[in-house]
Amino acid sequence: MQFTSEQRLDDGVLEREFTLGEIPGILWTPKSASAPAPLILVGHPGGLHMMYPRLAARARHAAAEGFAAATIELPGSGDRPRSAAAEQARADLRRALDAGEPVDDEIVDRLVLPLVEKAVPEWRAALNALLSLPEIDGPVGYSGGVIAIGIRLAVVESRISAALLFAGSFVPRTMFEEARQVTIPLQVLLQWDDEGNDRQLALDLFDAFGSKEKTLHANMGGHTGVPQFEGDDGNRFFARRLQ
Amino acid sequence: MQFTSEQRLDDGVLEREFTLGEIPGILWTPKSASAPAPLILVGHPGGLHMMYPRLAARARHAAAEGFAAATIELPGSGDRPRSAAAEQARADLRRALDAGEPVDDEIVDRLVLPLVEKAVPEWRAALNALLSLPEIDGPVGYSGGVIAIGIRLAVVESRISAALLFAGSFVPRTMFEEARQVTIPLQVLLQWDDEGNDRQLALDLFDAFGSKEKTLHANMGGHTGVPQFEGDDGNRFFARRLQ
Repeated sequence: MQFTSEQRLDDGVLEREFTLGEIPGILWTPKSASAPAPLILVGHPGGLHMMYPRLAARARHAAAEGFAAATIELPGSGDRPRSAAAEQARADLRRALDAGEPVDDEIVDRLVLPLVEKAVPEWRAALNALLSLPEIDGPVGYSGGVIAIGIRLAVVESRISAALLFAGSFVPRTMFEEARQVTIPLQVLLQWDDEGNDRQLALDLFDAFGSKEKTLHANMGGHTGVPQFEGDDGNRFFARRLQ
Repeated sequence: MQFTSEQRLDDGVLEREFTLGEIPGILWTPKSASAPAPLILVGHPGGLHMMYPRLAARARHAAAEGFAAATIELPGSGDRPRSAAAEQARADLRRALDAGEPVDDEIVDRLVLPLVEKAVPEWRAALNALLSLPEIDGPVGYSGGVIAIGIRLAVVESRISAALLFAGSFVPRTMFEEARQVTIPLQVLLQWDDEGNDRQLALDLFDAFGSKEKTLHANMGGHTGVPQFEGDDGNRFFARRLQ
């Protein structure tokens, strides 16, 4: 892990860009770091540059509550090499959505399963590197982004103690079985009228999670309409579950 | 409205019992009452004495955030005269539930519709009396209890600005049309495995509400298993919506 830039933001949060091998990432640490901070992995749909304003806002919000926050670029997104198969799957998905057709499971599988397979080991490698820094300690939470990545991480990565998942992207049906294996505390966000997301599938997924402690927060509006107060609620969820 | 008893609780909250005609009720006002407090009407399933510990806990929790809180006994509950028709409907409901049978709409109608018809004017009369007290002012929120009463109040009582509804009791199908007329901000609590409540009906009801700002909080567990943190979340909802 190599830090490539460093800036102190106006709220005192230290923002550092890094690379982990060829993968770019960003780390935010709280202003006052007298003790090692617990860590929140900040998920996203891919494209660090485009997502930066929202990612930085979420990270600074978390840092204000004493959390470090970090993210890495997804495979095939941003400046990382494209995968022809993923691009094809994405184009097929877009065509189905634009035509108002139901999305074939087969397209979802082609799009999401390889992404999960590639991304999850990268997030785990990032976790290794991040937890070796003196200013960061466990426990670790995972927040948002591609929900299928969050599910797989929650199952295979025992250092993740709680997850805030956004039911706003496609989940391969085979992953419902993995969802049953999740046991950590969950908070699941659902946009009730998410134009690109099947509400009933999201409710079925919430039902499937094996966690005894799981909470669903459903709000009105489309994919990008998550109310601001859910940021505070998310912080409180992690404060409850990571302490 | 006649106050019949008064005690200062150990957290400084003033608890006063009152009668409004033949209807008993309880009013809690915050310790420091420099300005008139906004009011939360605390709903319940009937039986003030039996419900007192939980009602007082909710009221004191709200008072700690600066809200006054008040409740009245429901028709046919506690020390109030029983209705033979309501008792019969309750017995029929219990028999169906005990037998594991689906509950006929006809039973729900017989049980809930007359209760709504009688209770709602009483809560509005209580609101008149409470808002005439110098220590209480608007805005007003309604919290919990029989959800059908909350729906009707939200439609007909324009002084109620926000409602926290518990989707844990039967709603006559005819009231779904009323739910569409609700426009105030809502937070709806749902216990995912509520033994006496139909989850899909509750989700349909949430969908039906006409409010642009509505949030569903679903948690694991049965009817009485609402997590403690939902009390804080409820306070924050009212703080957001009543100020």
